[in-house]
Amino acid sequence: MMGALPAEYTTPQPGHLLGLYVIMRAFSNGCAAMTGVEAVADGTSAFKPPESKNAAKTLVILIATLAFLFLGVGFATHIYHPKPSEVETIISQLARANFGQGILFYLINFATLAVLMVAANTAYAGFPRLAAIVAKDGYMPKSFTRLGDRLVYTSGILTLTIIAVLLIVMFEANVTRLIGLYAVGVFLTFTLAQLGVVNRVRRLKEKGWVQAMIMSGTGALVTGIVTIVIAISKFTQGAAVVVVLIPIIVLVSYWIKRHYEWFDETMTLHPYDFNPLSEPAEPLTVLVLVSSDVHRGILEGLEAGRAIAEGRPDSILRAVHIEMDPEKTPRLKEKWVQFVEPYLGEKIKLDIVPSPYRWLVEPVMDYLDWADMERSGDRVIIVLPEFETGSWITQFLHNFTARRLRSALLNRPHVTVVSSRYFMKPMAWRLGRGGLVY
Amino acid sequence: MMGALPAEYTTPQPGHLLGLYVIMRAFSNGCAAMTGVEAVADGTSAFKPPESKNAAKTLVILIATLAFLFLGVGFATHIYHPKPSEVETIISQLARANFGQGILFYLINFATLAVLMVAANTAYAGFPRLAAIVAKDGYMPKSFTRLGDRLVYTSGILTLTIIAVLLIVMFEANVTRLIGLYAVGVFLTFTLAQLGVVNRVRRLKEKGWVQAMIMSGTGALVTGIVTIVIAISKFTQGAAVVVVLIPIIVLVSYWIKRHYEWFDETMTLHPYDFNPLSEPAEPLTVLVLVSSDVHRGILEGLEAGRAIAEGRPDSILRAVHIEMDPEKTPRLKEKWVQFVEPYLGEKIKLDIVPSPYRWLVEPVMDYLDWADMERSGDRVIIVLPEFETGSWITQFLHNFTARRLRSALLNRPHVTVVSSRYFMKPMAWRLGRGGLVY
Repeated sequence: MMGALPAEYTTPQPGHLLGLYVIMRAFSNGCAAMTGVEAVADGTSAFKPPESKNAAKTLVILIATLAFLFLGVGFATHIYHPKPSEVETIISQLARANFGQGILFYLINFATLAVLMVAANTAYAGFPRLAAIVAKDGYMPKSFTRLGDRLVYTSGILTLTIIAVLLIVMFEANVTRLIGLYAVGVFLTFTLAQLGVVNRVRRLKEKGWVQAMIMSGTGALVTGIVTIVIAISKFTQGAAVVVVLIPIIVLVSYWIKRHYEWFDETMTLHPYDFNPLSEPAEPLTVLVLVSSDVHRGILEGLEAGRAIAEGRPDSILRAVHIEMDPEKTPRLKEKWVQFVEPYLGEKIKLDIVPSPYRWLVEPVMDYLDWADMERSGDRVIIVLPEFETGSWITQFLHNFTARRLRSALLNRPHVTVVSSRYFMKPMAWRLGRGGLVY
Repeated sequence: MMGALPAEYTTPQPGHLLGLYVIMRAFSNGCAAMTGVEAVADGTSAFKPPESKNAAKTLVILIATLAFLFLGVGFATHIYHPKPSEVETIISQLARANFGQGILFYLINFATLAVLMVAANTAYAGFPRLAAIVAKDGYMPKSFTRLGDRLVYTSGILTLTIIAVLLIVMFEANVTRLIGLYAVGVFLTFTLAQLGVVNRVRRLKEKGWVQAMIMSGTGALVTGIVTIVIAISKFTQGAAVVVVLIPIIVLVSYWIKRHYEWFDETMTLHPYDFNPLSEPAEPLTVLVLVSSDVHRGILEGLEAGRAIAEGRPDSILRAVHIEMDPEKTPRLKEKWVQFVEPYLGEKIKLDIVPSPYRWLVEPVMDYLDWADMERSGDRVIIVLPEFETGSWITQFLHNFTARRLRSALLNRPHVTVVSSRYFMKPMAWRLGRGGLVY
């Protein structure tokens, strides 16, 4: 008979292991219902002075209210026997049974909604600030420390929102399963916070430290037991996620910290370090990438390349064409003679690199290897002529290889990438599109 | 009584409108079952010479086989009365009824699977080539004309795959609904192709053109009627998608064509056009963006800026710091005096632009407006110092504002963006990561 009943409904038998487990579980469920009271302790500094006295008063009122409501709900449950349901809360069932579906019923439900909405806001008040503190110490990405122009920590708020959405979707907004997730996290925090207090009073040994230590130590012990009980009893109902995630989060935090330390060590300049500015400016090799047609965008790129190389007799200016379609090369050479040679003639040389497999990135890399070998120690500046069609839709109709080429080039030391742009629509038109009027 | 029966099962009554509709519908369903025969006509050029004779022979064999199979299936259906089902095909039901669930049953089903797999391949053989032809004429994005290094049209293949996946997901792999989509498209194409032939023979007036015109004209009429019947009768079963999509595709094609024409007109150089290369090189204003710490990445940026401005007495070199946190400015100035001034002293000036709202992009834009006003006609070169941590994971830990700043800068004419990179890990290590050994 016993085996057929779900474990939850067995009669507690003190002394028996199963009975102890059921009692611990009931205790932990009760504790979870009480969470939120700690907000007063967390926010003591926000009270009017004398802060601790006012906070203590508030805590007494809060606890009294909570106890009253808790006992009241317990009593009402005893009378009306509401059934746990995924579609209607116990509070709502009790209100309906007691007052009927009248104004009071709706008032109670909307009041509950309002209270829960305020409660949901506490995460937004707390997490971004906490994340900023942790990030300042280097254990979370530095972007969490950045105050946006509305004086809030944008990254923290966005991260919290994304996590909240993911949790709701993953757990299908099932409150019963989300409670398990919540309870482990909250009691683990309570335990750690109280252990922190124990550590602190033991170190400082201020007046009354023994009592304070016993008080917080007992608290830590109780909440610690609750944490373990919840982690075990609700393991399949969400607690597993926390048990797995927390060690991962801790490891990632340490890894982030180590990265930032390495970054500072590597990037910081010391007085005895080599300073490139102490040497004369390096000679330049300026390469302009040329397409199979010498159009206005290419001229703009050549103009930028010339402006950069100008005035440096030790610099080289070259144009490179990756020849994917040899049929187009005669036309390119013809246009080159017509539009470029009359002005840049002896200053620039056009190199044509055959690409029989119609690759773009690889021949450019090969060409750079060859150019590097030719004159080492130069700064290689490569100009990528781009054009701006004036709308992002039409921009899609032109090829994206430029982006891939740019990131491949930025992976080479000694290479500096210059993006020149030809604007196909006049500025006034483009500003008009954005709604700006000069 | 009539109203209660689904339209499909009413008895055809010739002369009556509903009866005509049912006959047309049966005719169009039969036609849809015959599609695929046109592949011989489409691929005539691929036959051994004499091409048209061999193609004609093949067509006769194909039609005979098809007719035999069609009649056979019809006859078997008459005997075994299989029921249309979403989980087992008619062919499979007939095979089971005739041969039992033995080797022959499996042989027939696997043979059908093999034939359908070959059939699915025809789209991959046809669409990319067709798309390349259309794209060469400028009615589809130019990237469809690009042969990849495996000598196939990569864009066409990828596009076809994406569309196929979308269709399967949207129609939940329901063959009945997909048939509607397919049939309208295929008969519309048949009609247009035959109208094209009519037009051509009428224009060329070769021997026997009248017969050819009557033949193709009749074909166009019949398939045209089928197209309309299917579009109406299967409107809710997928045909609606085609009826809506085809005009949109045609409009988009014309819009793409117009864009490419505009692009060519705008970009093509004419001998009488202004050629910027005919003027002396513009003076440069080189701006280096400096963060709140003068680290190695910033030095690399300053080095690039100096190399570009070097040798041009008419050029200006400036460093700009956007001051989001005024507390860090004294340290920046101290490091500037220590690491930069001894070498670049009189050559560079450090401008500090306050940003009380902690914006980055907007103050840079304001600064450029001011700089532009100061000396117009310059080419403004802005150096964005970046650093490469050596792995993309750690790169995420640093801020992304650089990317946003870069695209905002590229929206300004007269501004050329230079990306300088400091490599935090030595090259050998980075190549090792990529698996390359020099």
